Amino acid sequence: MALYDTIISGGTVVTASDRILCDVAIKDGRVVALGSGLTDADEIIDATGKLVLPGGVDAHVHISQPSGEGIVMADDFASGTRSAALGGTTTIMPFCLQEKGQSLRAALKDYHAKADGECHVDVSFHLIISDPTDQVLGQELPALVEDGYTSFKIFMTYEGLALNDREILDVMSVARDTGALVMVHAENYDAIRFLTEQLEKRGQTAPRFHGTSRPIAVEREATHRAISLAELVDVPVMIVHVSNREAMEQIRWAQNKGLTVLGETCTQYLVLTEKDMDGLGMEGTKYVCSPPPRDTASQEACWEGLRTGTFTVFSSDHCPFRYEDEQGKLTPKGRTSFRWVPNGIPGVGARLPVLFSEGVMKGRIDLEKFVAVTATNPAKTYGLYPKKGTIAVGSDADIAIWDPKKKQTLTHELIRDGADYTPYEGIEITGWPVLTMLRGKAVVENGELVGAKGAGEHLSRAKSPYAAQRDPIAS
Amino acid sequence: MALYDTIISGGTVVTASDRILCDVAIKDGRVVALGSGLTDADEIIDATGKLVLPGGVDAHVHISQPSGEGIVMADDFASGTRSAALGGTTTIMPFCLQEKGQSLRAALKDYHAKADGECHVDVSFHLIISDPTDQVLGQELPALVEDGYTSFKIFMTYEGLALNDREILDVMSVARDTGALVMVHAENYDAIRFLTEQLEKRGQTAPRFHGTSRPIAVEREATHRAISLAELVDVPVMIVHVSNREAMEQIRWAQNKGLTVLGETCTQYLVLTEKDMDGLGMEGTKYVCSPPPRDTASQEACWEGLRTGTFTVFSSDHCPFRYEDEQGKLTPKGRTSFRWVPNGIPGVGARLPVLFSEGVMKGRIDLEKFVAVTATNPAKTYGLYPKKGTIAVGSDADIAIWDPKKKQTLTHELIRDGADYTPYEGIEITGWPVLTMLRGKAVVENGELVGAKGAGEHLSRAKSPYAAQRDPIAS
Amino acid sequence: MALYDTIISGGTVVTASDRILCDVAIKDGRVVALGSGLTDADEIIDATGKLVLPGGVDAHVHISQPSGEGIVMADDFASGTRSAALGGTTTIMPFCLQEKGQSLRAALKDYHAKADGECHVDVSFHLIISDPTDQVLGQELPALVEDGYTSFKIFMTYEGLALNDREILDVMSVARDTGALVMVHAENYDAIRFLTEQLEKRGQTAPRFHGTSRPIAVEREATHRAISLAELVDVPVMIVHVSNREAMEQIRWAQNKGLTVLGETCTQYLVLTEKDMDGLGMEGTKYVCSPPPRDTASQEACWEGLRTGTFTVFSSDHCPFRYEDEQGKLTPKGRTSFRWVPNGIPGVGARLPVLFSEGVMKGRIDLEKFVAVTATNPAKTYGLYPKKGTIAVGSDADIAIWDPKKKQTLTHELIRDGADYTPYEGIEITGWPVLTMLRGKAVVENGELVGAKGAGEHLSRAKSPYAAQRDPIAS
Amino acid sequence: MALYDTIISGGTVVTASDRILCDVAIKDGRVVALGSGLTDADEIIDATGKLVLPGGVDAHVHISQPSGEGIVMADDFASGTRSAALGGTTTIMPFCLQEKGQSLRAALKDYHAKADGECHVDVSFHLIISDPTDQVLGQELPALVEDGYTSFKIFMTYEGLALNDREILDVMSVARDTGALVMVHAENYDAIRFLTEQLEKRGQTAPRFHGTSRPIAVEREATHRAISLAELVDVPVMIVHVSNREAMEQIRWAQNKGLTVLGETCTQYLVLTEKDMDGLGMEGTKYVCSPPPRDTASQEACWEGLRTGTFTVFSSDHCPFRYEDEQGKLTPKGRTSFRWVPNGIPGVGARLPVLFSEGVMKGRIDLEKFVAVTATNPAKTYGLYPKKGTIAVGSDADIAIWDPKKKQTLTHELIRDGADYTPYEGIEITGWPVLTMLRGKAVVENGELVGAKGAGEHLSRAKSPYAAQRDPIAS
Repeated sequence: MALYDTIISGGTVVTASDRILCDVAIKDGRVVALGSGLTDADEIIDATGKLVLPGGVDAHVHISQPSGEGIVMADDFASGTRSAALGGTTTIMPFCLQEKGQSLRAALKDYHAKADGECHVDVSFHLIISDPTDQVLGQELPALVEDGYTSFKIFMTYEGLALNDREILDVMSVARDTGALVMVHAENYDAIRFLTEQLEKRGQTAPRFHGTSRPIAVEREATHRAISLAELVDVPVMIVHVSNREAMEQIRWAQNKGLTVLGETCTQYLVLTEKDMDGLGMEGTKYVCSPPPRDTASQEACWEGLRTGTFTVFSSDHCPFRYEDEQGKLTPKGRTSFRWVPNGIPGVGARLPVLFSEGVMKGRIDLEKFVAVTATNPAKTYGLYPKKGTIAVGSDADIAIWDPKKKQTLTHELIRDGADYTPYEGIEITGWPVLTMLRGKAVVENGELVGAKGAGEHLSRAKSPYAAQRDPIAS
Repeated sequence: MALYDTIISGGTVVTASDRILCDVAIKDGRVVALGSGLTDADEIIDATGKLVLPGGVDAHVHISQPSGEGIVMADDFASGTRSAALGGTTTIMPFCLQEKGQSLRAALKDYHAKADGECHVDVSFHLIISDPTDQVLGQELPALVEDGYTSFKIFMTYEGLALNDREILDVMSVARDTGALVMVHAENYDAIRFLTEQLEKRGQTAPRFHGTSRPIAVEREATHRAISLAELVDVPVMIVHVSNREAMEQIRWAQNKGLTVLGETCTQYLVLTEKDMDGLGMEGTKYVCSPPPRDTASQEACWEGLRTGTFTVFSSDHCPFRYEDEQGKLTPKGRTSFRWVPNGIPGVGARLPVLFSEGVMKGRIDLEKFVAVTATNPAKTYGLYPKKGTIAVGSDADIAIWDPKKKQTLTHELIRDGADYTPYEGIEITGWPVLTMLRGKAVVENGELVGAKGAGEHLSRAKSPYAAQRDPIAS
Repeated sequence: MALYDTIISGGTVVTASDRILCDVAIKDGRVVALGSGLTDADEIIDATGKLVLPGGVDAHVHISQPSGEGIVMADDFASGTRSAALGGTTTIMPFCLQEKGQSLRAALKDYHAKADGECHVDVSFHLIISDPTDQVLGQELPALVEDGYTSFKIFMTYEGLALNDREILDVMSVARDTGALVMVHAENYDAIRFLTEQLEKRGQTAPRFHGTSRPIAVEREATHRAISLAELVDVPVMIVHVSNREAMEQIRWAQNKGLTVLGETCTQYLVLTEKDMDGLGMEGTKYVCSPPPRDTASQEACWEGLRTGTFTVFSSDHCPFRYEDEQGKLTPKGRTSFRWVPNGIPGVGARLPVLFSEGVMKGRIDLEKFVAVTATNPAKTYGLYPKKGTIAVGSDADIAIWDPKKKQTLTHELIRDGADYTPYEGIEITGWPVLTMLRGKAVVENGELVGAKGAGEHLSRAKSPYAAQRDPIAS
Repeated sequence: MALYDTIISGGTVVTASDRILCDVAIKDGRVVALGSGLTDADEIIDATGKLVLPGGVDAHVHISQPSGEGIVMADDFASGTRSAALGGTTTIMPFCLQEKGQSLRAALKDYHAKADGECHVDVSFHLIISDPTDQVLGQELPALVEDGYTSFKIFMTYEGLALNDREILDVMSVARDTGALVMVHAENYDAIRFLTEQLEKRGQTAPRFHGTSRPIAVEREATHRAISLAELVDVPVMIVHVSNREAMEQIRWAQNKGLTVLGETCTQYLVLTEKDMDGLGMEGTKYVCSPPPRDTASQEACWEGLRTGTFTVFSSDHCPFRYEDEQGKLTPKGRTSFRWVPNGIPGVGARLPVLFSEGVMKGRIDLEKFVAVTATNPAKTYGLYPKKGTIAVGSDADIAIWDPKKKQTLTHELIRDGADYTPYEGIEITGWPVLTMLRGKAVVENGELVGAKGAGEHLSRAKSPYAAQRDPIAS
């Protein structure tokens, strides 16, 4: 019997701080050795000239969430995790949405049922708290945090989701008491409604007015408010999907003040702009998400936020709707006003190739930073590390082997999620994950799915080190 | 018949930009000439060695407002304007509070009835919008702005007063359409309630916890939000009673960004601190106001805000309650928790002497800045200029003659308003208004009231130049 | 005999804080009364519909300075003060340049000799310290400050003028000890030489490379350094001719830190840009001055600096050279490299009309701010107030009557200084000083010089209130 | 023959991004494998419960430099590297000081001669450029960069060392052309001389006035200037030994502006203050270094700079002089004025234990950050990575095994360098390197030197990735 199951040989192994030419030995789904000249394995994968990276961890993904009004999200767990794997991602963190009046346990039961046996990569649920009743705050949440659901997201906008400041403070208090991490969608709901009504009164209902209805000040204000509420409760907070300089500078200001405020940006804020929503007819709906893409100066600010560490995490905010579909972007109501166009765009598959090509290959960030923001930091931030997010002895052998020189034009076919388009269509990409491996088993090889549905498991998580005290020398 | 009614002779006349040794001639209640060696008058007041300043304009005063729960405000219009005159102020701008369900016209009728014939100095009402119904927004407010009620205040805190963001946007929209100026009390209501409940749960109910329940972040957040909402509506906004550096820097940031954001600070934020609320028993209630006094670094920031022009206006936020009074600071409920102690402290009389002594005489601001922030700027900001706020040909002869060398200890007796104490008791004051004149007639001489009740009139106001377009060369 | 010599009747009198419809009475060269309906005068000037402004005080003017290399400054005191008067300015503050090895007294003797009997408006010399010997620092400067030369300028660049940091500290120490005010030309000399040599090596010698050789960082660095040296000595400092946001923000940062740092900007930084130096052939030399004009964003920053009070003073930095002249812009050496083109452009005449038209009439600053930065503030800052800089009882009757509606295209003919061009040629101007009066006597009427040469006198100055302690209540 | 020479077994291996429980296998001086359950070695070191860290890289060390005036530096290469090893450091980067008139080659020859065969740990020289002649700039420097001396330091202060701005620009230009990294000691020389003379005139000559002579503004100014000069040349720059918030914020401002400006702070700025120089008699000289230690707010700013990434590198600035020594701190001239006290304090041994105890164990930074700033970042920044600065396959087996629970009081005996004291005497330390290994061989065990003199070698370095372009995917 061979010593190892698999050896990845001759590649450059990259972590969030190091890049080392060495072999990786895998046994029973985990990395068991890093060395040079390793040989004794059942399978040897030649990675010469390739980069051996931790599989991506996408900390912000929406799958199979009900979106109301007869709208259907384009991905189920099979298709969503397939696209993730095609793009080099081996763990996704989708949301379990509590509906009004629903218990969190019930919601989780639903989402687990949808995911069980369907996933090509590992998944771990964040909770969305939309109805913070006493029962939820006092009983369910504390118990669920102990059960490994250690992060929850709250919304400052959206009908039926938005919490008021008092509710936010209450949820944050539970996070403080339990050591959970709060994620915030920061946009001012009242301001959006006000602007939307004004636009509609003026007949400005085309998709591009989606952006006009949610200007930067709407996001900046809510960001400042979320930070302030967290400051009052003395609890860390993660501001997700930051789209522009003003919001980014609020986070930086807080960090320099000594507050534990974390930031995330997403693919769309690096390569799309508001102009993408300008298209003729309903074409612009393909880019409708919230916050909306801004302008090139905002893109530059988001790159700066990644480079300087203001942002800890880079995610997709994958939220897919089919374009040519009356249950997707083209609902009858959506044709009457941007207000009714489902918010969200697909991206779980495109996330890593776009960042690699636009970031690493164009010299905006280095390889280590790429690994940090796409894998190591999300894994650490949300309590999956060191099982996930790095290539190290003892970690899960979740690995993406990248050919850094492979050039191709991004198409939806390459990352085939459940939607019928990608907003990143046509971008020239240098670098691609030619093999994606989950716990030592290939899931995708050369763009073909080779793993079986159900290989992916749900992960219970530890508490975030940002949110919970830990021994400074604990391994 | 003499050419002039009165000549003030030999003093140093000070405006917001000049200080000139000259005589002031008055006829029919107005300044008609400035010159040297003027003589032909019925009365000649020798102001040699004195400063001849515009009477103060106090733009933030509460009188005879209902405070709920059986609490009675300590001043009626007679006593409140008496104290103003004793302190060198000749115009006050009290609030007319709309109660829930009440029309603004009805509210104004009530307040005018309280004020008519009672005032020792001139008054002009701001409106407080607590119930922004369609009727109020669409009909009453626009009409009232045209009638000369050109400013309105909104609250982001207080039960029954706080507007939500949507309501604020709606009120600001009316201001934008009508050229009115919006004043904002910026504190986050939900946060205050949350902190108050936490403190009460811990039994921390003594008066000093009033400060703990409204920390700087509560004010800073609401300040940022008010600025953001005004930015979205594209309307000027006045942030009143700023107490600390963080809120001040929000205003400065907005101003440097090019937004028309104005700021006001008040006496209490220059000379009181949170420690004043520490007193034994209920003594601390004498200093309970909102925002609360902070610390000496905050005081320094407020001086800096005055000096550098971040703050345009200096007011008293006079809001008097008797101390030894169960309908004042010592309500039975107030003894159970700071939450029930009426918010507000008297100050309309102390405002000018304290700023003169602590500011001008200690070299923190110069005389011209003193005049600017206490008289000229408030008059300009709120549409009373040039009738009020300066000593110039054609202006009302509202004048305070100051003896800059007079030294005395501040006592409530010197500024006798309707309360039974002054929070500024015991401060050593250099400089005092030895004669206060309203439209050419003495109201106070050497600390004695000499004018008749009813000399003061209500003033209809023009639109604020900050809020309404005007011809750049109009006089 | 009439009571007054002259009455200016019916105009709007504007000060740095007030604009008042009233008459101005003048006797023996001074304003003796402001009133309405004044009549008893030898001469009555009807100013109905006009603005009656304090004559301009231009605090930064170069006249008849030797410029080395056979270059001749285009103005003598007759022509320079003529242009000032044509543009509504009644006091200029030229520099007396100490040459290496020269005593300050000797330099002053020379400059007084050039000016005596030649001036159409009043003048008062600043000293330029180029050779801070022990004799100069220990003896001459202190005596000259007492004699009324209360400000001196130092250079951080220019061959033969630049002081090193130690010399700057020494000069600042004298200023501190004597209560004088130091003005600083802030550009880094070594950096300019370095960049110039690099450009010349690459053959980039056309006039437009003047701008390239002095980028914003060169000015920002020296500004920060000047502020720091003043901070170490604990002395106020005036940073002259600020051209851009980065330097402006250094000053603002210092002011917010509590340092007494003053700023000045000039006409060229509001309306010219680097592109003006692009002209074919040597045309670009018409705009060569230092710091160079920048770009439109820099212009906006300079407007912001005026509006928010970061800049106290607005000057011309008039430094005229003839264009079609081998002793002017077109020296033989200047044709070989921008390095040899004389630095400086004319502007003493254009300063006020350009600021009035671009600033007041376009709504960027209000009338009071116009008066403040062009007259009152320079007079106060440099110890000429209240004799100069305002219209008030007792002040010199230095007055410019403006027709705010007069429209014309700016040409050199309108402001005829000794140069043969104006860099502001062709700007459409609304508003013009139709009468300029010095101590009660008309100097210019309707664009024609009517005063006699020699009407202007030299002014001894008090110490700057920024630099010397004064009684807070002194008039 | 065993497979490996040495296995470090059972410890927690920490890199700049990961902490992993695993074994480290070493052969021929290099790490050859990381795994679990590794066994086949000549020597197995049990590291259970210990931390296995990369040996420290101290990028800022002075050894055997001539200090003029008969002053002798306390360390030669034997004693200096001994202390380094005792404190867990395996590579130091001392300076080779060019003396005026000396060629760089000659200087290097001298320093190599001093170091050869003497070192207990590896060394690699930075160059100090004190005499940037054409020969040095045009010939020697470019050749030396190619030979692996890829960084040079310049001084903005010190007699005989300070370069003027022009010289700095010239040196920076060479760095730009060759891909070398410039390090700057940023303090304004003229200002220090000026303040020193003023202090001496007042008789303020005690050691504590060393701090007064170099206030924060002196360092902040030079920092801003160094950044500006680098900006003009478009070259990266490392600001060494930053001591306070104002200088730190200059670096942060530059980084946020997109400039490649790096920062370093040192042990003394985290735990000492100006008060340490207050001691009776000459005791204060033990803490005299430049910049001087500041105050506790400055310490907090330096921690913040480490935590937020503003500072990339943490060094000792080891610069040792004996205290009880007329050729050390107690020179006869030094007794007459602080000006003559040799500047510098020992610290190469104390650096890591102090940062570990005060930083990691007190929760101010995490273990990964500790490794990053003490080893990985300095190695990367100065071109020693991946040979040095990490524990990875292929890297030198430079390893320090720490007992994180060991508690002791810091004494000079523990870190015995050539001085006769440590400025950190008496600090309670938790955590200590119990074994230091250089290329697989133990140098120090349990506080005893076990390695032979001469084990340390000189290292030629690659160019800094900050200063030289590199392939984004190169390993």
